[in-house]
Amino acid sequence: MADELSFPTGLGTSTPETISLLGQDLAADLMGKVGFGELAYWLVAGRRPTPGEVRLFEAVLVALADHGFTPTAIAARLTYLSAPDSLQGALAAGLLGGGSRFLGVTEDCGRFLAETLVAAGTERDYDVIALAAVRRAREEKRFIPGLGHPVHKEQDPRTPVLIAIAEQEGLRGPHLRLFEAIGRVHPQVLGRRLPLNGAGVCGAALADLGLPTDLLRGFALLARAAGLLGQLAEEQARPAGMNMYRDVERHAVEVPLDWTDEGSTPGHG
Amino acid sequence: MADELSFPTGLGTSTPETISLLGQDLAADLMGKVGFGELAYWLVAGRRPTPGEVRLFEAVLVALADHGFTPTAIAARLTYLSAPDSLQGALAAGLLGGGSRFLGVTEDCGRFLAETLVAAGTERDYDVIALAAVRRAREEKRFIPGLGHPVHKEQDPRTPVLIAIAEQEGLRGPHLRLFEAIGRVHPQVLGRRLPLNGAGVCGAALADLGLPTDLLRGFALLARAAGLLGQLAEEQARPAGMNMYRDVERHAVEVPLDWTDEGSTPGHG
Amino acid sequence: MADELSFPTGLGTSTPETISLLGQDLAADLMGKVGFGELAYWLVAGRRPTPGEVRLFEAVLVALADHGFTPTAIAARLTYLSAPDSLQGALAAGLLGGGSRFLGVTEDCGRFLAETLVAAGTERDYDVIALAAVRRAREEKRFIPGLGHPVHKEQDPRTPVLIAIAEQEGLRGPHLRLFEAIGRVHPQVLGRRLPLNGAGVCGAALADLGLPTDLLRGFALLARAAGLLGQLAEEQARPAGMNMYRDVERHAVEVPLDWTDEGSTPGHG
Amino acid sequence: MADELSFPTGLGTSTPETISLLGQDLAADLMGKVGFGELAYWLVAGRRPTPGEVRLFEAVLVALADHGFTPTAIAARLTYLSAPDSLQGALAAGLLGGGSRFLGVTEDCGRFLAETLVAAGTERDYDVIALAAVRRAREEKRFIPGLGHPVHKEQDPRTPVLIAIAEQEGLRGPHLRLFEAIGRVHPQVLGRRLPLNGAGVCGAALADLGLPTDLLRGFALLARAAGLLGQLAEEQARPAGMNMYRDVERHAVEVPLDWTDEGSTPGHG
Repeated sequence: MADELSFPTGLGTSTPETISLLGQDLAADLMGKVGFGELAYWLVAGRRPTPGEVRLFEAVLVALADHGFTPTAIAARLTYLSAPDSLQGALAAGLLGGGSRFLGVTEDCGRFLAETLVAAGTERDYDVIALAAVRRAREEKRFIPGLGHPVHKEQDPRTPVLIAIAEQEGLRGPHLRLFEAIGRVHPQVLGRRLPLNGAGVCGAALADLGLPTDLLRGFALLARAAGLLGQLAEEQARPAGMNMYRDVERHAVEVPLDWTDEGSTPGHG
Repeated sequence: MADELSFPTGLGTSTPETISLLGQDLAADLMGKVGFGELAYWLVAGRRPTPGEVRLFEAVLVALADHGFTPTAIAARLTYLSAPDSLQGALAAGLLGGGSRFLGVTEDCGRFLAETLVAAGTERDYDVIALAAVRRAREEKRFIPGLGHPVHKEQDPRTPVLIAIAEQEGLRGPHLRLFEAIGRVHPQVLGRRLPLNGAGVCGAALADLGLPTDLLRGFALLARAAGLLGQLAEEQARPAGMNMYRDVERHAVEVPLDWTDEGSTPGHG
Repeated sequence: MADELSFPTGLGTSTPETISLLGQDLAADLMGKVGFGELAYWLVAGRRPTPGEVRLFEAVLVALADHGFTPTAIAARLTYLSAPDSLQGALAAGLLGGGSRFLGVTEDCGRFLAETLVAAGTERDYDVIALAAVRRAREEKRFIPGLGHPVHKEQDPRTPVLIAIAEQEGLRGPHLRLFEAIGRVHPQVLGRRLPLNGAGVCGAALADLGLPTDLLRGFALLARAAGLLGQLAEEQARPAGMNMYRDVERHAVEVPLDWTDEGSTPGHG
Repeated sequence: MADELSFPTGLGTSTPETISLLGQDLAADLMGKVGFGELAYWLVAGRRPTPGEVRLFEAVLVALADHGFTPTAIAARLTYLSAPDSLQGALAAGLLGGGSRFLGVTEDCGRFLAETLVAAGTERDYDVIALAAVRRAREEKRFIPGLGHPVHKEQDPRTPVLIAIAEQEGLRGPHLRLFEAIGRVHPQVLGRRLPLNGAGVCGAALADLGLPTDLLRGFALLARAAGLLGQLAEEQARPAGMNMYRDVERHAVEVPLDWTDEGSTPGHG
């Protein structure tokens, strides 16, 4: 029959007796034998990681889990304040801030490095590749993802630690090496030294782990899901959302609407 | 004091006696006197629309409210099935599908027309502008937003009706005129005639209404919020989500994970 | 064939030539002829409202659209700050605060009134019904939804206006009358006079409009969707989210985690 | 100054030189030294778990990560289909299904067991406690959370495995023991034997791990976040969402709206 509908999947399926996940018997082969980070890696990469890969991967997740009162943490707390009946809504609201500006750096950096490596062809000297990439970005007036940090202006403490872990595990690959080279050469072009930030080095490490570039943001989101649960646990135990809201409201000042003239064209034909 | 924090706003504020919205007295001047579509327009445009503008604007919202079992409607129904305790979660899940592919056409089309008009400089002949724009898109292998429809292959019934309403209200402006011109000239370049679709004509009309290009998607989302409430009301009265889910699950076929080799590079340094 | 799958719907369907919505021809019969509020009512109630019903309904939506820097507005602005590429995410994050505490009052009040009316049986004196209901709530130590307001401690300005509109349109029905009666009799039981709040009177009016109790929260969400678009338009034109975030972060104080002892039981068997 | 605003937190803070998380130096003490599941536990419980606790906790997360084409997985895939530009939106849409019906069992079961244990006072015989609880639920016509499964009608394969892991790690505590007792005694009351399901046993184990009852759903959501990333990775590599959507749409049948009469009362006063 032409119309034979089927949805193939290599993830979870089940029968009355067994549950299968990733082609394994969930209860017999995975539970108690596979760590949670290991499973997340396997689910997205489609292959079981080595112990060294798991260690580097979990170091990335740990690095990205929580950064205190970020916009995503505040949004999650305020949503929980408004709708305490729906923990999933508060978590989702927090994750929805995982877009281009804050959490996106990890993905942007991994993609930038991967594309730069492809464009570099047979060139093998990372400093040469990095210098050309920084120059091109400068000409196109584009920022280099992963360079600079509003707080850690000298050095992001996560960067050398993650590189060291990758080195220990034999996983300091082309993306991390190119990222380090960017850290060495960019002052020649930009005229000042910026730190390699933690979100960027995480993107480089995930790319070296062979994870799909289009899903790197997903790992930042997974890490942040754990951090947001911590924020919501703290909000339960030691509520801050109401005061955050009141503090904003207290400083509201009524002004005339005045954006009428901006960015709009009259519509009369 | 250097630390004088203030959050200026022209939207809602309140005192113990009054509630102010858009500089008006909400209870005395708005409730019962301003329609809901009119208020939505005012909130986003920062100015009160004329009756003709309200009519065109609400025609757009009506056109975009519901298209049956779209991916967003199905996502909302399945979320409601899983979490019937959280109507806001089901509505939010549906709206989250309002991105680049389905609901984004309205915004993309409005932006495309606005940018094309700016780039056209002093040229006043819409067919000339349209022909150049279609040629450029063809060269750059880009789709023209608003052109073509998977179901309404000859004509989208919404398009002529919305143009007629705009004409009646004196609001058939440059964006709609350019959109119509694209409809006339594109076969010369593409070699076949495609319909001007409803999402696109809505984007053109919203742009002619002077609404900010970056927020056009927002109106598609507002319209869809009403449609999704209809879907959820129907799901309550006549549940379909469970059968939708079971139908998908029934056609699941376990296969080996095989995307390991795609899009990933090994990470060994 | 036994396995004949079908998903019946009275909402939107389409053929290559026409688009049908609510059994009507969308382009010919709805666009330009039906207002947006009217359509939203029709979609959820399953019947076309009268002009008087539309006026009362839209007055409710106008009343609920925006209340300035509420937790939902702040969450939407912060999410937009973090992820400006996804307007739908910022809107969804704001709506996710539409739960039990803030936006839920409308639904809770409508449901409370409807259940009280059912329980009252043949009793027709609203003051008698109200007195019994307030006494029962007091005994069960439950709050009466719709009574009291943190800012409008004497009177919520929306309440008399909405009742007046209902009266004008011949729609001041049993739910509103019972709500008014609660306003009259509760001081006898509680020992002090609290205002009937705007969210509550909106719930009463929606219930008198015959809208399904389980979906009353949905109308608060629809109204709020318009208000949140206004907030996001203002955030674009006059950004405040970054300062809101910085203000919170600046007041962060590191303390030891100390909720270990609360609410948890040791898990050793 | 009386108005000294502060937001105390035991989670993340940072200075230009260091990043602190949970009172530890993130880079020096956590990255590469603490697993991701361990960190998630620590964040929510407010204390570092033992290796045995981590193993049991991660076994729970692995058990709950993915169950194939569940409503949440389908909602995530369809949202990604509609808005491929926003991975965070697709993930959030999937998590929003983590409410009372599907993912909520874990939390409901943990809470039911905890409340039953508190109510049991000094009684120490789990079979006696369980029998009373099942009888009371039967009288109140309430379901017992964690009992029964639509597919695994005889036995859920996850249940004995998780109990065995808890036993190995010395963590088979009162919640798991009570849950097992319910499995032994319920046929006396209900007249048939139902399996103890996997979501339920996970809730019992999390409660024995001393995690806060109100946040148990959060762990199901964290586990599901990993599973949903797997679904979205598979959707990228092997798209199924479009066919799921088309299959539903193809089976749409237009019918009259007929829920007008249900659940609504006319609103004329």
